[in-house]
Amino acid sequence: MAKKLTPRAQDYSKWYNELVVSADLAETSAVRGCMVIKPYGYAIWEKMQAELDQMFKETGHQNAYFPLFVPKSLFEAEEKNAEGFAKECAVVTHYRLTNDPDQPGKLQVDPKARLEEELVVRPTSEAIIWNTYKNWIQSYRDLPILLNQWANVVRWEMRTRLFLRTAEFLWQEGHTAHETRKEALAEAKQMNQVYADFVENFMAIPVIQGLKSASERFAGAEETFCIEALMQDGKALQAGTSHFLGQNFAKAFDVKYATKEGGLEYVWATSWGVSTRLMGALIMTHSDDQGLVLPPNLAPIQVVIVPIYKGEEQYAAVCAYAEKIKAQLLQLGLRVKFDDRDNFKPGFKFNEYELKGVPIRLAIGPKDMEKNQVELARRDTKTKQFVEINALEDLLPKLLDEIQQELYQKAKNFREEHITEVDSFDEFKEVLKNKGGFISAHWDGSEETEQKIKEQTKATIRCIPLNQREEAGACVFSGKPSSGRVLFAKAY
Amino acid sequence: MAKKLTPRAQDYSKWYNELVVSADLAETSAVRGCMVIKPYGYAIWEKMQAELDQMFKETGHQNAYFPLFVPKSLFEAEEKNAEGFAKECAVVTHYRLTNDPDQPGKLQVDPKARLEEELVVRPTSEAIIWNTYKNWIQSYRDLPILLNQWANVVRWEMRTRLFLRTAEFLWQEGHTAHETRKEALAEAKQMNQVYADFVENFMAIPVIQGLKSASERFAGAEETFCIEALMQDGKALQAGTSHFLGQNFAKAFDVKYATKEGGLEYVWATSWGVSTRLMGALIMTHSDDQGLVLPPNLAPIQVVIVPIYKGEEQYAAVCAYAEKIKAQLLQLGLRVKFDDRDNFKPGFKFNEYELKGVPIRLAIGPKDMEKNQVELARRDTKTKQFVEINALEDLLPKLLDEIQQELYQKAKNFREEHITEVDSFDEFKEVLKNKGGFISAHWDGSEETEQKIKEQTKATIRCIPLNQREEAGACVFSGKPSSGRVLFAKAY
Repeated sequence: MAKKLTPRAQDYSKWYNELVVSADLAETSAVRGCMVIKPYGYAIWEKMQAELDQMFKETGHQNAYFPLFVPKSLFEAEEKNAEGFAKECAVVTHYRLTNDPDQPGKLQVDPKARLEEELVVRPTSEAIIWNTYKNWIQSYRDLPILLNQWANVVRWEMRTRLFLRTAEFLWQEGHTAHETRKEALAEAKQMNQVYADFVENFMAIPVIQGLKSASERFAGAEETFCIEALMQDGKALQAGTSHFLGQNFAKAFDVKYATKEGGLEYVWATSWGVSTRLMGALIMTHSDDQGLVLPPNLAPIQVVIVPIYKGEEQYAAVCAYAEKIKAQLLQLGLRVKFDDRDNFKPGFKFNEYELKGVPIRLAIGPKDMEKNQVELARRDTKTKQFVEINALEDLLPKLLDEIQQELYQKAKNFREEHITEVDSFDEFKEVLKNKGGFISAHWDGSEETEQKIKEQTKATIRCIPLNQREEAGACVFSGKPSSGRVLFAKAY
Repeated sequence: MAKKLTPRAQDYSKWYNELVVSADLAETSAVRGCMVIKPYGYAIWEKMQAELDQMFKETGHQNAYFPLFVPKSLFEAEEKNAEGFAKECAVVTHYRLTNDPDQPGKLQVDPKARLEEELVVRPTSEAIIWNTYKNWIQSYRDLPILLNQWANVVRWEMRTRLFLRTAEFLWQEGHTAHETRKEALAEAKQMNQVYADFVENFMAIPVIQGLKSASERFAGAEETFCIEALMQDGKALQAGTSHFLGQNFAKAFDVKYATKEGGLEYVWATSWGVSTRLMGALIMTHSDDQGLVLPPNLAPIQVVIVPIYKGEEQYAAVCAYAEKIKAQLLQLGLRVKFDDRDNFKPGFKFNEYELKGVPIRLAIGPKDMEKNQVELARRDTKTKQFVEINALEDLLPKLLDEIQQELYQKAKNFREEHITEVDSFDEFKEVLKNKGGFISAHWDGSEETEQKIKEQTKATIRCIPLNQREEAGACVFSGKPSSGRVLFAKAY
């Protein structure tokens, strides 16, 4: 805990990895690419879940649960989807272990217990869900279906990083079924807006809403909406996606409904998801060289109280005093911790709570008691002030709110400073190399150009912003005509 | 929906299966033995989760998340545990699908993508968690560790039934690590008590707390505490278990801690879990031939309002009136639904909400409006009464509370009537055949006797009750001496 983090300027990637582990958020496990989410990290994820779950319910969605496994024959039904995920599927082939005859005490996969049909561990659940919806949908009266599930999924990634890209991750996936193209498209757009609201207002991370280019779309989607955030190192991070699936899955699973008019039509679909990847976005948006910086909404501990004392007598007095303050603050509904451990020095504790991103620290010693005050330190700005005890009840809720707003504003300013309009490919490369961030440039709309830019710069089209201005221009790469700018960036 | 359920007296098992499906709780899926939990069923499970989660946190536990997969070498480390679960393990052997050269458009498991070490889909997580705890525990200062995870697990059962026994199920599993035997034993006992409190007070299901006999213990446990409930057909259902694991997993994974005194000791462990199986207990404890009966605590809809009308004019008037009542009741914090669908008759709706177990139904027609009243029907007792509108606000919360209590009392009376003390094996068989329920009988404590009784009667020892009276007697089967009675029953 005492070891300092590698500074961001020196090695951003190393800083991130060290921070995730030393702030007790997550760690690697014995299973290749799978992480253990530690209690402190999981507590943050739970706050995200609770807020999102409420937002889904307020927009008319219900939760359900579908199987972890997808039989191979169902998985391959929607060909584009299957093709997109086939390369990273964990596959269950057997259903039993048995004693290894050659190694007493060891087990082997029982060759007699081979499954007739292999089961794919879900990388996403469209296939199993649409195979179920088939039985639920006969008429327009059965529509819309507006479901979500909280689940684990597995994508066998070759290069993994804690939270950002793991073989197993936790997420929610919404799957909806609609009568019309228009309604499904509106749903996909609405859920992308819900994600934007959540990430901006609750996580204090500014995002740009946009559409993915064809090559970056979800496999099986006709249109993918996304929210894109910008990390401190100038790389973009896709924070959530919402897909308009057209009738692709309805056709693959033969899901038709009787219309009001007596016809028979294929059903329209959407799916949308955010994952524990958001933890990565959270960390990389707000944190600094001292550790995590948490927006108060997401902080498992919003206020920590640290006693300063010498000897047992002072310890007892300061503790009694601090407990009273803690009780007061709990009554306000704040999440407060009083750290009364007597085997760690205050300096050690200060470092620990800085590392863990606790928004406000109150230190209390005998002198403070005399003066009816505490020393208040803000994690984000590292400013300190003395505050009268009586003023705490008024001050703290306001201050937490202020911190939440200021974190957002700071991240937004950074983001705004890092959207650069460029009009030549030289400039494109120069900005990408020396400044980073989003590059706003004209693109001719072809996959070929997109691919060449990617090959030469590693930058991809992050999105075609929903608020794109119409503006005639020439593609930054090919010079061909373009009607508006899109956002490029290197991305996580 | 209009079809009647098979009566319980005719075929209890068929009644159960029909009820689960027709009340929209769950259904089978395309994956052998795996279920789809439908929104209405999942909403009930969410209420259980929320309450349990709070109880775990109030007893000092935090949530975390560990990998879905367990490498085979870790899985087999604790031999008894491995042996107990080996026969029902789903095993991932490959990490990629590829195009099937013989069948265009189809996929096959890529033979080149075989895992070096097979991964077991967790049937329970002791192995992966203790392999992690190994790195977290050095000294007594790192203890206790008090964690829980909400997760899916897979046990490849050959005979499955919705909620009661499924290949994949949802559960929570607590995993704690302690300095001493005494502390771990107290934790295991405490969590069994938490389960008993939850199931009795929140789910209105009376349970008996006890210890499992050696042969019924969790594989790898030194002692298994359990809560046993009694279903309406006279069969017992194990509703939750809490295991004292001794030092078995600490030894298997070499987890030692430095004691205060400077020694080095193996860590003591517990694990405890309840699952979606509780849904089965809920259904089979309270429901009747008309459908589900839900305790108000668990009811997604506590009060449903059904309008009675002829023609559009009456419909409009009744709806306006009902909406006002709904708004009032929502203000009380009740979960209220107003069913204003105009394409279903009241009788159809009445049946539907009976089937779905909604505790209170309010019907409102023009005559009721004139008299400022509603017709109130209780789902559990099927009694009806007219209630003045003004009295609803006072009455409903009290009535819901009363229903909750009465359901518990009714189930408890049934359970009490179905604990029969027997002193001979003939009586044992007679009671088991003609009355069912728990049989309280002396047992000589040997596995041999237990096994023979099971073979001859299909009854097993459900538990040695924690409140067992000391009473000298003779084993009902062997005649050998016994110091107290244990509970036998046929079980789910």
